[in-house]
Amino acid sequence: MNDLERRLREARAAGRVLATYSPAEKAELLEEIAGALERAEEEIIAENRADLAEAAERGTDSALLDRLALDPDRIAGMAGGVRAVAALADPVGSVDGGGRLTNGLEIVRTRVPLGVVAVVYEGRPNVTTDAAALCLKSGNAAVLRGSRIAERSNTVLGRVLVRALEAVDAPPAAVTMLGTDRDELRAMIAAKGQIDLVIPRGGEELKAFLEEHARVPVIFAAAGNNHVYVDASAEPGMAREITVNAKVQRPGVCNAAETLLVHRDAAPAVLADLVHDLEDNGVELRVSAEAKAALGNGAESLADASEDDYATEFLALVMAVHVVDSLEDAIAHVNEFGSGHSEAIVTRDLEAAETFRHLVDAAAVYVNASTRFTDGGVFGMGAEIGISTQKLHARGPIGLTELTTTKYLVTGDGHVR
Amino acid sequence: MNDLERRLREARAAGRVLATYSPAEKAELLEEIAGALERAEEEIIAENRADLAEAAERGTDSALLDRLALDPDRIAGMAGGVRAVAALADPVGSVDGGGRLTNGLEIVRTRVPLGVVAVVYEGRPNVTTDAAALCLKSGNAAVLRGSRIAERSNTVLGRVLVRALEAVDAPPAAVTMLGTDRDELRAMIAAKGQIDLVIPRGGEELKAFLEEHARVPVIFAAAGNNHVYVDASAEPGMAREITVNAKVQRPGVCNAAETLLVHRDAAPAVLADLVHDLEDNGVELRVSAEAKAALGNGAESLADASEDDYATEFLALVMAVHVVDSLEDAIAHVNEFGSGHSEAIVTRDLEAAETFRHLVDAAAVYVNASTRFTDGGVFGMGAEIGISTQKLHARGPIGLTELTTTKYLVTGDGHVR
Repeated sequence: MNDLERRLREARAAGRVLATYSPAEKAELLEEIAGALERAEEEIIAENRADLAEAAERGTDSALLDRLALDPDRIAGMAGGVRAVAALADPVGSVDGGGRLTNGLEIVRTRVPLGVVAVVYEGRPNVTTDAAALCLKSGNAAVLRGSRIAERSNTVLGRVLVRALEAVDAPPAAVTMLGTDRDELRAMIAAKGQIDLVIPRGGEELKAFLEEHARVPVIFAAAGNNHVYVDASAEPGMAREITVNAKVQRPGVCNAAETLLVHRDAAPAVLADLVHDLEDNGVELRVSAEAKAALGNGAESLADASEDDYATEFLALVMAVHVVDSLEDAIAHVNEFGSGHSEAIVTRDLEAAETFRHLVDAAAVYVNASTRFTDGGVFGMGAEIGISTQKLHARGPIGLTELTTTKYLVTGDGHVR
Repeated sequence: MNDLERRLREARAAGRVLATYSPAEKAELLEEIAGALERAEEEIIAENRADLAEAAERGTDSALLDRLALDPDRIAGMAGGVRAVAALADPVGSVDGGGRLTNGLEIVRTRVPLGVVAVVYEGRPNVTTDAAALCLKSGNAAVLRGSRIAERSNTVLGRVLVRALEAVDAPPAAVTMLGTDRDELRAMIAAKGQIDLVIPRGGEELKAFLEEHARVPVIFAAAGNNHVYVDASAEPGMAREITVNAKVQRPGVCNAAETLLVHRDAAPAVLADLVHDLEDNGVELRVSAEAKAALGNGAESLADASEDDYATEFLALVMAVHVVDSLEDAIAHVNEFGSGHSEAIVTRDLEAAETFRHLVDAAAVYVNASTRFTDGGVFGMGAEIGISTQKLHARGPIGLTELTTTKYLVTGDGHVR
């Protein structure tokens, strides 16, 4: 047995212990982790400085350095995040079905931990403690694998987590921090039967690596190629507010909008204003021929929108703008180019709202609201480990419940068939 | 675009139409299918005879020929199965969460069809109509791929299904029957974005093929390496009834038991009787050294149990018998060798029951009842397309609800973040 196999076996055994923990025991563990983070502030910052120095030496750009950097405030934020997870409702043991059969057999469907959950992530060291807290709270052992750039920071955070586990007599393998060796990652995501779920949080390269090599179940955190569709009957002011919010309020996140679709009949009243609003907010536009025609004089100078633009999640202050002939065309465009994340219609027409809701194929469909609300915290799930656009197991925010599975508990009195 | 791509696109489009069907429209469609099956009895039997003749010529064994054969009774049974699915509660549109946020935003989590569900199966032609009915009732387009031995039968059944779809003006691609070409199967299970779920129903070879080649989501219908554990405090009569039922009542199915575990302290009162009961019912035993020691004189002649036996799903009148020192050892044995399907304890001890329930890692855990109850019909799900031992999306019987996903419907009044 190699070192990875041994560690995954220990994680499995630790998960079996965690599965028996009461909510109070998990609260005690998470409070210990939060306190241990606060107490280890100097130690963490020292290691983080070493990561930062090495990254700066390699010419890492300043945005990435900022994501990597820890200071007392950020460490306090990490401890606060752990306490926030501790305060959430415990998903384990909740009953979501069951009943008594005519033969008297009693069936209860209850939620149980998955077992061992691996999270593979890039950049920010706070993911280490967030992911650990969510896994532990849902009764799972966590296998964590951060990126090379944060290796020292993650190593010390792993030490702090294990110290906290030991302080409350929890099995230390309940948080198993892997190194950044690529072959080990490849072996881990192929460890069938040892890992119950892998959640990758990172860019397209990481996603492609998992698609190619993973032999254990994976839920991909999502890309969000989202649309705001301004229907013929939209209230112009609302259309402008929602569009600007969905694009501008935080353009780098997966629930931001990437393409604006406007119904031909709404264009005269609202399209020019929308273009101005977006440009005023620094948004670079890619405008279709149909939209230019609707805008009329002066629109020729705007950049053209291509099919590639429609298919792109810009994650930046860039937006494609297109005019469609009908609600049906808008829905077809969304279903062709969207990534199934968050889609919004602005309308005053009940039938249009219902049609959009029913026919758009996405995790979250909005009527008269910004796409920016798709978020585990906003949706009342307390915290999320990512947002899924797949249809199996978890669609939308992946919260504590999605880190559990079910077990049928059947009680008889000598029942046979 | 090749023929398969074209057909999968048509299936996707048909699924979008089915997703809008009301429960009444689906009931009408399924009733039309049931009637069409009855009306096509002669046509179906003629094609089935050709399959049977060809299979007999190739020397197919009689059990398999029996599974393949259709007669008026079996066709009536297929029609009855479709009507039974029609009578189930419609999972689409059911609301399983939601609420109003403090900002007034309204969130409703509702069940929606997956889209396109493929079922790959072997042998029995009745799977064709069962699978079609379950997919259509849950609002999904069905892509069906049966085995070569039943090709003519499945082709005519596919024709009957399409005829029924056309009779009620439903899109004919809502049931897409593929041929038995291996390369086409391989292409289909790799068709990312075109197929939302593949469910294989067949032997280990089919499963291995999908594990190797599938690039779309798969839920594997389960193997059931299940145990009956007779605890120290078990009531002997109940232990005997449950053990015999779990092993003998239908040994070829996945919820039958394969290994009997007996606590050392229960062995004197019950082990010899259990061995006699099983042998009287024609069960071939594989007995561990510990069990032989507990049985004493005369046990030497029994066949030995190996670790391979513990790991084998016999699906026949064969059972491994082992004596364990403790409840903990029983649980460890179950978690090591079991496939996570159905596990039973016979006990009068509350703590033992609770410990077994909590620590055994399986889809269904039984206290004082036979493992044979794990079944979608028995569990009140009406019908099942298989039983899953995986932990994501569906664990246990896969019924209509498991053939759907969720969609968050969010309604605002100009809400922005």
